[in-house]
Amino acid sequence: MVEVIVGGGIVGLSVAWRLARAGRPVTVVDPDPAGGASHAAAGMLAPVSEVTYTEEPLLRLGLASLRRWPAFAAELAADAGLPEGAGGVDLRAEGTLDVAFGADDLAALDELAAFMDKLGLPVERLTGRECRRLEPMLAPSVRGGLLASGDAWVDPRRVTAALLTALERRAVPIVRTRVTELLREDGAAGRVVGVRLEGGAELAATTVVLAAGAWSAGLAGVPVRPVKGQILRLRSPQPLLTRCVRGSVHGSSVYLVPRGDGELVVGATQEELGFDTRVTAGGLYELLRDARELVPGVTELELADVVAGLRPGTPDNVPIVGPAGDGLVLATGHHRGGVLLAPLTAALVAGEAGGEEGGPAALCSPARFGEIA
Amino acid sequence: MVEVIVGGGIVGLSVAWRLARAGRPVTVVDPDPAGGASHAAAGMLAPVSEVTYTEEPLLRLGLASLRRWPAFAAELAADAGLPEGAGGVDLRAEGTLDVAFGADDLAALDELAAFMDKLGLPVERLTGRECRRLEPMLAPSVRGGLLASGDAWVDPRRVTAALLTALERRAVPIVRTRVTELLREDGAAGRVVGVRLEGGAELAATTVVLAAGAWSAGLAGVPVRPVKGQILRLRSPQPLLTRCVRGSVHGSSVYLVPRGDGELVVGATQEELGFDTRVTAGGLYELLRDARELVPGVTELELADVVAGLRPGTPDNVPIVGPAGDGLVLATGHHRGGVLLAPLTAALVAGEAGGEEGGPAALCSPARFGEIA
Repeated sequence: MVEVIVGGGIVGLSVAWRLARAGRPVTVVDPDPAGGASHAAAGMLAPVSEVTYTEEPLLRLGLASLRRWPAFAAELAADAGLPEGAGGVDLRAEGTLDVAFGADDLAALDELAAFMDKLGLPVERLTGRECRRLEPMLAPSVRGGLLASGDAWVDPRRVTAALLTALERRAVPIVRTRVTELLREDGAAGRVVGVRLEGGAELAATTVVLAAGAWSAGLAGVPVRPVKGQILRLRSPQPLLTRCVRGSVHGSSVYLVPRGDGELVVGATQEELGFDTRVTAGGLYELLRDARELVPGVTELELADVVAGLRPGTPDNVPIVGPAGDGLVLATGHHRGGVLLAPLTAALVAGEAGGEEGGPAALCSPARFGEIA
Repeated sequence: MVEVIVGGGIVGLSVAWRLARAGRPVTVVDPDPAGGASHAAAGMLAPVSEVTYTEEPLLRLGLASLRRWPAFAAELAADAGLPEGAGGVDLRAEGTLDVAFGADDLAALDELAAFMDKLGLPVERLTGRECRRLEPMLAPSVRGGLLASGDAWVDPRRVTAALLTALERRAVPIVRTRVTELLREDGAAGRVVGVRLEGGAELAATTVVLAAGAWSAGLAGVPVRPVKGQILRLRSPQPLLTRCVRGSVHGSSVYLVPRGDGELVVGATQEELGFDTRVTAGGLYELLRDARELVPGVTELELADVVAGLRPGTPDNVPIVGPAGDGLVLATGHHRGGVLLAPLTAALVAGEAGGEEGGPAALCSPARFGEIA
């Protein structure tokens, strides 16, 4: 019997890959592997510039996972037969520049800088001119910024493609169908013994790892909800930016992530609309408006792709990772952090990390929400 | 031997269809029939609301072709086996409402109304409130409008699809390749005797009808240039508008065209960039910005399609239709008016219209640009 991973996004595939590397027999089930939120995601590995006032646990998880990314990327590239090192998944570490557009945005940035300082985070406060020295394509109206030089980013579509290749090389089956139900012994609260597939077939499992993102709540009683994000990709003949730029334009947030191949990702809306993945005129308009304000040169770039994905949100924005009763392990609820947190999550599920008191395993534990049924 | 139509856009296909109906053997050559500008076009049949100060000849041509549209659509639907009448190509005649957003736009609208009045055109000047009574989804800030109740619109993609079906039913060959050259007897100025296809094959013709739109200048010495238009299609669960709405938002023009199937077309940019068909962040942004100002409800609509097409522009914005030396007939240069002017153009080429002094044939005549080589 095998361990069944429900969900072939970046989290589920990473878990499957780490388990397979450890010699454990696994099977992944997903109707559209590497689709969903991982396909939409920009791939920022930015625990520092993403820090917010109430989310210190998330910061600690993010920093822990960011430290794992270089080795994770290098091992993955090797396993998938990609070019040596981390280049195969376009892992880049030039840092994130967080800029302010209006006077209101600058005030918020100054407060954030003070908060980061208190946390001892390595950020540098820059003037508008200093920002433009680093990124000459920034608008003259940018008033100031914060440079988080430790932040990094990666191309999530390359990561999931590499994970699928690595799994194929290890002969891990990917069952391309939907799981409709977890199978339990002795009714609703019993041990999980497998999954039911669309059409009725049953797949037996020693353990089920639930990594179904926004769809997790439909399969187990986890407090996960879909948070819609619309995101667009532009094609840039030469790169406009050398690092990730995040910005606040009169309180509205936008980020721009440059890729090695000339792609510039502009994201992302945050909408609480249930399972709605429509790309809308309004979502697109706001992204284009704010991106133009920060980097006017985007106007000339070609539109390559627009998608909407569903982030799996939790009540405290911290993922839900760990055992939840006999035969069930959760690896879900990663919200905006699935790409950043995939290496740590996979290590936790594979037993390669965690354990220490107050450490990542404790922070992510399903137990904080009581019994999961 | 056959007449060869170079170009399978709405003009070329209409010409081919009218000739085939008249029993004349024709062949159409186009690498992508029903693609290009016809695929991008919104399909407004709006000679009145499109009138501008310097273009009275174009107005006369437009009015003449608009009168032909109902019969053209009905005959086409019958020939293509579509539902009876004009519904098969979604021909609608609820008129065009031209609205003004800012005070500057209103001043321009008032001047236009006076000019239309002088021309004796049947338009009605409305207050902002009257506009909203006709179209309740218009923004409260719309200050006034002009209703051109004679204007109409059609779905160009349905028209070209119907034309292709009608041609297929009449066994008209469509050669899906590119014409690289017109073949002439006795060198550069001789009689046109056929076309050379990509790859080198030659197709002999009694007459060549050049309907290659923006690509016409590459085949004959016609003063036609590409004018890029970006246009987007939104999906509307229920219709937001009952008629075409054109608007001026601080001098920037936008139009919204509702379809029977819930599609709402928003167009279009006008850019002089050569043969560039990239959809850009800036083009999309401007369309969304102006459409939102006029009809805020578009924000909620799903993006269905974005394309860029190339209008064939001429120095005087009037098409170039008629004989141009032995063996060559031109049917090109329709700029913004290809859909509106297709029935008239086809009738002119088929000899079903024209002739009278100062009439359409004279207005469109290639002779106004001297010798065409």
